Amino acid sequence: MTHEDFMRRAIALSREHMRAGEGGPFGAVIVRDGRIVGEGWNQVVADCDPTAHAEITAIRDACRRLGTFDLTGAEIYTSCEPCPMCLAAIYWAKLARIWYANASADAAAIGFADAFLYRELAAPAAGRSVPAARLLGNEAKVVFDEWSAMPDKVPY
Amino acid sequence: MTHEDFMRRAIALSREHMRAGEGGPFGAVIVRDGRIVGEGWNQVVADCDPTAHAEITAIRDACRRLGTFDLTGAEIYTSCEPCPMCLAAIYWAKLARIWYANASADAAAIGFADAFLYRELAAPAAGRSVPAARLLGNEAKVVFDEWSAMPDKVPY
Repeated sequence: MTHEDFMRRAIALSREHMRAGEGGPFGAVIVRDGRIVGEGWNQVVADCDPTAHAEITAIRDACRRLGTFDLTGAEIYTSCEPCPMCLAAIYWAKLARIWYANASADAAAIGFADAFLYRELAAPAAGRSVPAARLLGNEAKVVFDEWSAMPDKVPY
Repeated sequence: MTHEDFMRRAIALSREHMRAGEGGPFGAVIVRDGRIVGEGWNQVVADCDPTAHAEITAIRDACRRLGTFDLTGAEIYTSCEPCPMCLAAIYWAKLARIWYANASADAAAIGFADAFLYRELAAPAAGRSVPAARLLGNEAKVVFDEWSAMPDKVPY
């Protein structure tokens, strides 16, 4: 299968599940060693889950199938440039490369707020529209110290 | 229950599930109208899911319990300042406010890469360590156009 074949599968998923009313028009596949190991699509509406973007559900599917939280060496084909949540998830999953079809500007043109989110995340915390305040830092720090001292912890 | 009570619950979740080996030392609760409507903790290792951070799992739990993808008016208490994936998820879920205990600097000190991720997301795409390339934009755009023309779509 070629790059175009993988992307056409991502686009087909975006069309099929949009038409089924599951969420927005977004699909993604994860590819490792030349074959698809995970598929996802936007399921925000169907699953009542605001985090169920195509890239997130594709990553979760690949990890479930492969039995790992580490997709090192795999690549993602997504029908649209990732929002910041999905881009950060791609880093946490250790994906090697992103292929995308629609650009963020295309998503903005049909009403998806990715550009606003990128600006918010790049702003200092005090300048964001969702306020954040600190509470009980000393009590939580004790748990971090316990984590640091654990001999058998699994790094991820 | 006070702000401190809610945060102590988030910290208790972080400790309990860290000790159970489910993932890193992170817990979170979602509060609406003065009561906890969702709880989460890091389950990256136990669930083989790199997206299963405490804030994400708390948002998913609250949405499942309330039967909605829109948590407008709710607030999150998290045992650590959110990574960019979780911060963006907080925006998608429409949470009103963030309360956090450990700061990002505390997370960095025990080896969690949040600061690196914030820098990567703020960089222009061409300057990021995970390369991204465009493919078949014209074919994907057709699906966006179909979405735009759908009369019965559910905005989110």
